[in-house]
Amino acid sequence: MSSNDLYKQYTDIIHKVVDIDYASAVLQWDQETYIPEKGAEFRAQQLSTLSGLAHDIYVAPELGTIMNELIKAKLSDRIQSRNVELSHKDYFREKKYSTDFVIEISNETSKAFHNWVKAREENNPSLFLPNLEKLVELKRREADFLGYEDHPYNALMDDYEPGAKVKEIDVLFTEVRNHLKEFIKRIAAKPAPKSDFLFFKYDKQKQWDFGIDILKQMGFDFTAGRQDISVHPFTTSFNPKDVRITTKVEENDFRSMTWSCIHEGGHALYEQGLSSEQYGLPCGEACSLGIHESQSRLWENVVGRSLNFWKANYSKLQNLFPENLSAVSLEDFYKSINAVKPSLIRIEADELTYHFHIMIRYELEKRMIEGSLKVTDVPDAWNEAYKNYLGVDVPTYRQGMLQDVHWSHGSFGYFPTYSLGSFFAVQFYNTAKKEVFDLEKNISEGNMKPLLDWLREKIHKHGRYYNPQELCEVVTGEKLNYRYFKQYAEEKYSNIYNIG
Amino acid sequence: MSSNDLYKQYTDIIHKVVDIDYASAVLQWDQETYIPEKGAEFRAQQLSTLSGLAHDIYVAPELGTIMNELIKAKLSDRIQSRNVELSHKDYFREKKYSTDFVIEISNETSKAFHNWVKAREENNPSLFLPNLEKLVELKRREADFLGYEDHPYNALMDDYEPGAKVKEIDVLFTEVRNHLKEFIKRIAAKPAPKSDFLFFKYDKQKQWDFGIDILKQMGFDFTAGRQDISVHPFTTSFNPKDVRITTKVEENDFRSMTWSCIHEGGHALYEQGLSSEQYGLPCGEACSLGIHESQSRLWENVVGRSLNFWKANYSKLQNLFPENLSAVSLEDFYKSINAVKPSLIRIEADELTYHFHIMIRYELEKRMIEGSLKVTDVPDAWNEAYKNYLGVDVPTYRQGMLQDVHWSHGSFGYFPTYSLGSFFAVQFYNTAKKEVFDLEKNISEGNMKPLLDWLREKIHKHGRYYNPQELCEVVTGEKLNYRYFKQYAEEKYSNIYNIG
Repeated sequence: MSSNDLYKQYTDIIHKVVDIDYASAVLQWDQETYIPEKGAEFRAQQLSTLSGLAHDIYVAPELGTIMNELIKAKLSDRIQSRNVELSHKDYFREKKYSTDFVIEISNETSKAFHNWVKAREENNPSLFLPNLEKLVELKRREADFLGYEDHPYNALMDDYEPGAKVKEIDVLFTEVRNHLKEFIKRIAAKPAPKSDFLFFKYDKQKQWDFGIDILKQMGFDFTAGRQDISVHPFTTSFNPKDVRITTKVEENDFRSMTWSCIHEGGHALYEQGLSSEQYGLPCGEACSLGIHESQSRLWENVVGRSLNFWKANYSKLQNLFPENLSAVSLEDFYKSINAVKPSLIRIEADELTYHFHIMIRYELEKRMIEGSLKVTDVPDAWNEAYKNYLGVDVPTYRQGMLQDVHWSHGSFGYFPTYSLGSFFAVQFYNTAKKEVFDLEKNISEGNMKPLLDWLREKIHKHGRYYNPQELCEVVTGEKLNYRYFKQYAEEKYSNIYNIG
Repeated sequence: MSSNDLYKQYTDIIHKVVDIDYASAVLQWDQETYIPEKGAEFRAQQLSTLSGLAHDIYVAPELGTIMNELIKAKLSDRIQSRNVELSHKDYFREKKYSTDFVIEISNETSKAFHNWVKAREENNPSLFLPNLEKLVELKRREADFLGYEDHPYNALMDDYEPGAKVKEIDVLFTEVRNHLKEFIKRIAAKPAPKSDFLFFKYDKQKQWDFGIDILKQMGFDFTAGRQDISVHPFTTSFNPKDVRITTKVEENDFRSMTWSCIHEGGHALYEQGLSSEQYGLPCGEACSLGIHESQSRLWENVVGRSLNFWKANYSKLQNLFPENLSAVSLEDFYKSINAVKPSLIRIEADELTYHFHIMIRYELEKRMIEGSLKVTDVPDAWNEAYKNYLGVDVPTYRQGMLQDVHWSHGSFGYFPTYSLGSFFAVQFYNTAKKEVFDLEKNISEGNMKPLLDWLREKIHKHGRYYNPQELCEVVTGEKLNYRYFKQYAEEKYSNIYNIG
């Protein structure tokens, strides 16, 4: 059989699998947005049937045989060749999961999620800790059968951030900690910017309209996507031409909807920028969670909390909410949305203290997985770490170790990508500033197209062709380097806080 | 293997297939309600993958073998036994479809739909007739491989209305025609009720709220379903606990939304009333399209256009739209919503002339399928029939043979179920009046629960346990008999039109 025919067989199978996966994504999106209360029961069964089917079709020997042939044939097309290489890796990784293990972890996460919700409601970690313990044990087994060098946590991180290693993250996070701890101390010594006006009443419909307006300005294509309301904002994609984001609108916290729009919008622009021709194939998929997060945080923080962005948008906002903002200058508004203040809740943190939230979770996870921290000790260890790193007392477990859903989903190794994404974001943006003529002048005039075009060309269109660190090198000339974030943070916040 | 184990194997396979089918239904619902413009392309591919998968799993020999064993084992549970009997019939019917035929008809209907839309836009049947010709040919082939007695159209009707026969429909429709032609003539001799106020401006949001209110009154469970907006109103179900209806709101035609709410609400109550325990199995499925339509038309016409119904709801409506209705008495409103007037468009027809729309399509379809009417002669035959039966001239093909989507979908044998449903509806309601204490008094007070409870108990809960005519006999003591509709029509309209 010719390589062309073989490649066609390969894509036919992959397409079948991703068609099912994307159908599941539609069902999940519906579950978060429009499903009636009682609809969840059979929906869970339908989703489980679909994922079982996709798994069965994927791991059948046929695909492996075809890919082995294709690798032997040495495809000349570099994209095709890379697709097969990555699918081959994915395939043999997936094959390591026994059906028993898949069922066991799916059952355990269902129970864990249920008990996490209850534990959170009742502020009682002991309702959730037995499940957490079981999941940690399963994740250790998973690391074992996946295989790893040095540290079992490496096997888990690899699923989210290919190539990420404990050894390197430890070095990076030490640098981050040393820098930010000191810098935040200097900020804390300065008076906090006034920000009460962000918590006045903001009409929900006007907030929604403003958010849609910002998304359009960013270049989100509403003929290839939409925004809806959900309890927790998220982005999902059914193909590059149908990318959905959600948001929630809080009447008494203007920050909530606007920056979740911009954040999810950043994720969505990445998804809309992936190649339609490579639909479902590795080179049509996002590079990693870290790179995905680089896109959301680039837009949310580096752009969306910049003075230039608000030069373009603040008068519009003042016109929408004169009762709250007519007496607030652009400068004061800008300072208020960048207030740095240690706090309890990760998703409400400013862009500097945020990284302590991540580093705390990373340390706890790593120690749970390596066995040096007993799960029953996590609640105390959590509170201690928050006191130690952020100087805050954790008054309830709900605001402590029970705040995030990830562990109940069995997602260990995921958190570090949030920080990696933030650092990638600044490093990418730094290059964009050099390569794009008048980048910031355009942003200050509400023209985001030059930035989006650059991101499309440099990052989005490649999909998984490069791994994250390679991509960073191709785009910026070097691997991830914290000094870009450090420099960005110092410049921005020295100015805001008047630090000499 | 025990019968229990075998039965479990049977339900496992069926559940897998229906889980996929219901997932497709979610994707289709989304396609009609929320999908962004560019999302349709990959959505079509995803849907085609899902339906291919469902078909493959269904027709694999395994299911047939299991069911043959189960039939031999003679299950003692009457529901289980009936499930297997019906699935067995469905299975061997489905097996008659070769993959080639399925692909051919799917391709042809895609093209036909596309050209129907174009033909309609341009008012030019010749753009669609070649597709129609091809589809008629395919449908004749389908009738041949499915097998039939007497008339090939029987094989096609059977898919929508099990057991329906040309011979019987011909007899029924002759009776209908003879009766209605005469009766409508007598109505036409009387002055038409005033109805201009139905076409004043009705605020869309208020109409929507009123529709939701009516649906709640009918007993539609909004925790197990929802209503959204779409171009063409429809009902779809993903399981009895997640039933979705859609509507459209017209500012200058009050009738449009209200009665489409009630109509789709009737379908939806049926779906919500099906057995959850029998999810996906024949006894958890709707009996037939005719019975389905009996539920929608019972609510839409027999209840929703009755004086009692509006006794309960008219003052609410007047309060919502005093500018249009404060000077219109209940009596006059009731007459206006029951005005009988021959017209061009089926879906806008009153409940008497409606049946001519159906009979015309039935005759044309039957003659196309038997080969006594050439497809190229359909446009003229259509116009002639409308002149002949309804006395109206068809000014454009758009208002003529191009008005309905069904033929472009390859749905032949579907239309008769609309009339059957209307006649079933009245016959059922007639029995309900006898069996339910104070039925109409309750309706006139806005209490629909006694009616719904009766429908649940007598019709909904049985699913496909009985075939349509058996169900009619079980519920009403006799098979479908036009005299109930005749009597209902004469009583109601003699009163409205003051016919002695």
